Amino acid sequence: MKLKVVGVIAYDSITSEFGSKENIFGGSATYFAISSSYLSKEVRVTGAIGNDFNQSDLKILTSKNINIEGIVDLDVKTFRWEGKYESKSPNDAITLSNSIIKGESNVLDTYKPTLFSKDENTEEKFNLFLANGDPSHQLDLINQMTKRAELIGLDTMDFWINNSPDEVKKLFPEIDVLIINENEAKLLTNKNSLKNCIDDLYSMGVKRMVIKLGNYGLLYSHNKTKFFVPAVLVDKVIDPTGAGDSFAGGFMGYLSTVENLTEENYKEACITGTVMASFCIEEFGLTRLLNLSQNDIKERKNLLMSQIKI
Amino acid sequence: MKLKVVGVIAYDSITSEFGSKENIFGGSATYFAISSSYLSKEVRVTGAIGNDFNQSDLKILTSKNINIEGIVDLDVKTFRWEGKYESKSPNDAITLSNSIIKGESNVLDTYKPTLFSKDENTEEKFNLFLANGDPSHQLDLINQMTKRAELIGLDTMDFWINNSPDEVKKLFPEIDVLIINENEAKLLTNKNSLKNCIDDLYSMGVKRMVIKLGNYGLLYSHNKTKFFVPAVLVDKVIDPTGAGDSFAGGFMGYLSTVENLTEENYKEACITGTVMASFCIEEFGLTRLLNLSQNDIKERKNLLMSQIKI
Repeated sequence: MKLKVVGVIAYDSITSEFGSKENIFGGSATYFAISSSYLSKEVRVTGAIGNDFNQSDLKILTSKNINIEGIVDLDVKTFRWEGKYESKSPNDAITLSNSIIKGESNVLDTYKPTLFSKDENTEEKFNLFLANGDPSHQLDLINQMTKRAELIGLDTMDFWINNSPDEVKKLFPEIDVLIINENEAKLLTNKNSLKNCIDDLYSMGVKRMVIKLGNYGLLYSHNKTKFFVPAVLVDKVIDPTGAGDSFAGGFMGYLSTVENLTEENYKEACITGTVMASFCIEEFGLTRLLNLSQNDIKERKNLLMSQIKI
Repeated sequence: MKLKVVGVIAYDSITSEFGSKENIFGGSATYFAISSSYLSKEVRVTGAIGNDFNQSDLKILTSKNINIEGIVDLDVKTFRWEGKYESKSPNDAITLSNSIIKGESNVLDTYKPTLFSKDENTEEKFNLFLANGDPSHQLDLINQMTKRAELIGLDTMDFWINNSPDEVKKLFPEIDVLIINENEAKLLTNKNSLKNCIDDLYSMGVKRMVIKLGNYGLLYSHNKTKFFVPAVLVDKVIDPTGAGDSFAGGFMGYLSTVENLTEENYKEACITGTVMASFCIEEFGLTRLLNLSQNDIKERKNLLMSQIKI
């Protein structure tokens, strides 16, 4: 099954207790696409890059057989993000600055994503992941489909929940799986207990959800089914940037390889996503994620399974 | 197998977002004993009560077939604790006051626990849990045994780690399982990553450990084995007081019912402890823990198992 992702392509400057990196290739769509490329053979990225974009970075994507026809070049700057992680709370990215805060003209000012590139067969089956972005764009992308995607995953973030809560919530009945952080779930529902967050999200029309718990793992919920997966215990969390999108890439990537969307397959997808996220955090940026063998993935999955089996 | 616990018997005044309770029966030994009484038929408590102690509270223990011969009456006040829980971080108990802070003469001023009551057969096999307490007393209790307990579990807390770190660490090679909170593990090792905490604790002589992650569950570690158990998702965390000791009671209680201390039994003990803790937090104080049927426990265990099985 073809897997499409719509999201941000960016350059990140990141500081953690293990050092700093400036202007490294990143963005939600990038992490998602590279992670999912280890599962799905047909990953397509929709996003925008600017006139300062290093074309060799596109080759990083194509080297992983990722289709980049949906990436458009705009005559402004690529989106940039500067953030840091404190050693005491590595789950929380602290935004120091970004193109919008700096008032720099950038691709996000005017770009409205288009789901299908011009020669694409719009009748072909596909899965879709809407990475974090403007909820009005996300709704527009859903409306661009004449034939609905088989599976639609959605991410959002605190900025949109705070500024456009109604538009975010309007998406919930339209999608199949919401993939968000614990803090975002609490912000959306104004509840503290995870159980209450889940019940409230159901009442907002969410059918399935993965609530990411950072270094504690995740909680998957569908109807009365609840399923926990712990994070893989790694020595050092060098850089958590992109971990959530790497999770989503592994999750949606796995679900693009299965015959049927059974509950067991959703649970396996949670395992696969957790494995992919565990690699992402081991080096700055995309470094570790770009250098994986299928055997690395298999061994890491065995390690994770050993952590949860009696 | 007989199961002995040495710890505090107290009156607690507790505030959470769900209300307040004053001077309710509690203490580490109390929660441990009541929780473990659902597993083990021979639970014995060692601790001290004061001249203000309500004798009918001892009947609560004996009604659960808990042996109270090791509880001594002292002519000062019973230890009292006042604490609160913030709705945003229900895992962290905030101590508002206690008998020591208030400068009230209380049982902990002079009491030195004695492991065996006078008619007890000191050659009989037993398991031992040293609930949080002065590490010099804990070491003394270990030295009181001519015949070592089959299994020794140990708890401690930030107060002792900060004030007597060497005495706490001296205990580690002498015990079989360390049961502590994530914050305590980080404080002991000065490490942020759980993996590094575990490795450091091994190097300090800890053989097995359970690191409690609050509402995220726990991590068990022995040699290369790692095993996660999530917390049971409950609607409301009314009062987390005693959850850790209820866990330890279920854990040690389960291990007092098995023929052999296999790794599988340790993992089952983690599950049982998690189940017992999940009841503890559902009401203020001992209320829920005192009113359980074996069927309640079985159903809760099934619920927990459903959360972790693919």
